[in-house]
Amino acid sequence: MDCVLGIDGGGTKTVCIVMNAEKEILGRGETGASNYQSIGINAAFKSIELAIENAVIEALKTIKSLEVQVICLGLAGVNRPRDIEVIKKIVNDLQKSHRLPIMWELEQIIQPDNKSNNIIICHDALIALVGGICRDVGIVVAAGTGAIAYGRNHQGISKRVGGWGYILGDEGSAYQIAIAGMKAAIQAYDGRGELTSLVDVFTNHLQLETIEDLIEFVYRRGMGVKDIAAFATLVDSAAVDGDGVANEIIDDALGELVKATFTVIDAIFCPHIPNPSPQTIRNDDFEIVTTGSVWKGKSNIRERFIKVINQKYPYIKVILPRFEPAYGAGLLALKQYLQKSDSKAAH
Amino acid sequence: MDCVLGIDGGGTKTVCIVMNAEKEILGRGETGASNYQSIGINAAFKSIELAIENAVIEALKTIKSLEVQVICLGLAGVNRPRDIEVIKKIVNDLQKSHRLPIMWELEQIIQPDNKSNNIIICHDALIALVGGICRDVGIVVAAGTGAIAYGRNHQGISKRVGGWGYILGDEGSAYQIAIAGMKAAIQAYDGRGELTSLVDVFTNHLQLETIEDLIEFVYRRGMGVKDIAAFATLVDSAAVDGDGVANEIIDDALGELVKATFTVIDAIFCPHIPNPSPQTIRNDDFEIVTTGSVWKGKSNIRERFIKVINQKYPYIKVILPRFEPAYGAGLLALKQYLQKSDSKAAH
Repeated sequence: MDCVLGIDGGGTKTVCIVMNAEKEILGRGETGASNYQSIGINAAFKSIELAIENAVIEALKTIKSLEVQVICLGLAGVNRPRDIEVIKKIVNDLQKSHRLPIMWELEQIIQPDNKSNNIIICHDALIALVGGICRDVGIVVAAGTGAIAYGRNHQGISKRVGGWGYILGDEGSAYQIAIAGMKAAIQAYDGRGELTSLVDVFTNHLQLETIEDLIEFVYRRGMGVKDIAAFATLVDSAAVDGDGVANEIIDDALGELVKATFTVIDAIFCPHIPNPSPQTIRNDDFEIVTTGSVWKGKSNIRERFIKVINQKYPYIKVILPRFEPAYGAGLLALKQYLQKSDSKAAH
Repeated sequence: MDCVLGIDGGGTKTVCIVMNAEKEILGRGETGASNYQSIGINAAFKSIELAIENAVIEALKTIKSLEVQVICLGLAGVNRPRDIEVIKKIVNDLQKSHRLPIMWELEQIIQPDNKSNNIIICHDALIALVGGICRDVGIVVAAGTGAIAYGRNHQGISKRVGGWGYILGDEGSAYQIAIAGMKAAIQAYDGRGELTSLVDVFTNHLQLETIEDLIEFVYRRGMGVKDIAAFATLVDSAAVDGDGVANEIIDDALGELVKATFTVIDAIFCPHIPNPSPQTIRNDDFEIVTTGSVWKGKSNIRERFIKVINQKYPYIKVILPRFEPAYGAGLLALKQYLQKSDSKAAH
């Protein structure tokens, strides 16, 4: 049976979906991280291979054989030509893998410019958008460890705001909320900043003798960005408990996520109209999907986000993801497959 | 001849001063980094040993023999009991070193509480203060890669503000200026932020194709904090050239350094007076010494700092360092030595 593979490869997990032409999921496999810049090409290869294998084994319980027509990989941090080459090499090696009991049809279709277009490598935000909304038009506002607003309009034009990583950007992310919380605690301790319950919150939660031990915690214990980002929940809880400083931090994060979203809307959904009316946007007809841990905060950041968006654009619907990003990768692969079938049929 | 050693051990270099009882420098040695958390204990030991050796060899050109009475080490990032133990072990091993043609007298004087007090281990900001001002009262405002305001009053009470490192603090540092510059460029590029010449400045200076390549530069080339901090000069130059965003960044850094300094003054130089009058401060009689690359900026940040400080406290003199931090370590060692001599003579 003809099928496509949708793969979501990230810093924590890798998910593979086997999808048929009717958008049905035939199999799903999940493994560990596959961001090759961090873990190396071999380890990334093995994660992707195992995710495919798990998905394919599941699919082969009900299907006799699988012929992979298109593969779409949505990968974090893959946007340079060199990265694309590395991933293409991985896909080529996958086709020689003896572990995978499938037929690959990827080499058959070569475009006039000598580029195969049945291997799609794209931004991880795009597959989150397509999986979340179930179409390739709209905006995803992802606020987890990192943060990005990524949109794609009806003309296929995309716009990204944020997503520059923990040093250069990611405003509105859990990492930035956590760091802002720690800084506020430190500045209160120094005597530079407003008094805040965050001093006690961090001291107690991390079992520190004094807040000075944050230095030990952050710099010396090899804490990663994800580990630090996890402390955003402490700031969120302090905000719910009425701490003014914590509430300011959450408000700032909300403001950044709103600004990023409006920037995407202005850039690609109503680019020719200086002051778009709600009507214009309504005509554009798109949804915004929110993903990531920040939206789950108890301080109602998501509800407030929706309110601010709808104050300006009442017709935009803000939704939770309908499907996971790997499903979005599957849909993108399928779109490509169906276009090919149409174009073959026409010849 | 009785002498003391003053050592300044940091992340870039290690300096040792051999000083006699008349505060004269008999010898000076300089080697590489000695922050053991980064480079390991053995490498730190070797740096300190070689710095001492170089200083001693110079001293022995004019002096027949040297008996080290007190050693003072000012070390970055050494403030936990565990760190102190590591450094004491290093000093003990130094005393057994065959490379060093000196007599050590450090083990003779044991205090009643069984602590030797002829090995002084202190914060690197304190030796910068004492070296810079030539007394152990005043404030040092260090703004290089990192940033800290550190003061010590006439009663020996010290207060530190900032100096929490590049993730948690260091407001007003070159690192923060550089990162703020990069973020401003990115946000202008994203469409989120004000237009700024910093986009072109970074693109041209780093020979990037687009500002997006900053990601490659910052995350993938293993750029260290010092490497990033070096780009503060680009923001400084853009500010001189009239860029509004760059000027805001420099103004913010200035504001943070002023705030840190005022916090130190309020905490230890006039703690009992809610609204200190200039007269009170004058009576306190202390100087502020500025150290670090940020003060060398062409956008007059140092002149403006002095102006703001003197608007509130006209009697405080802001000076450039009179001597280097290793000299300050020597002075602290000497003070200890002279107190011992007095106490011996009294018995």
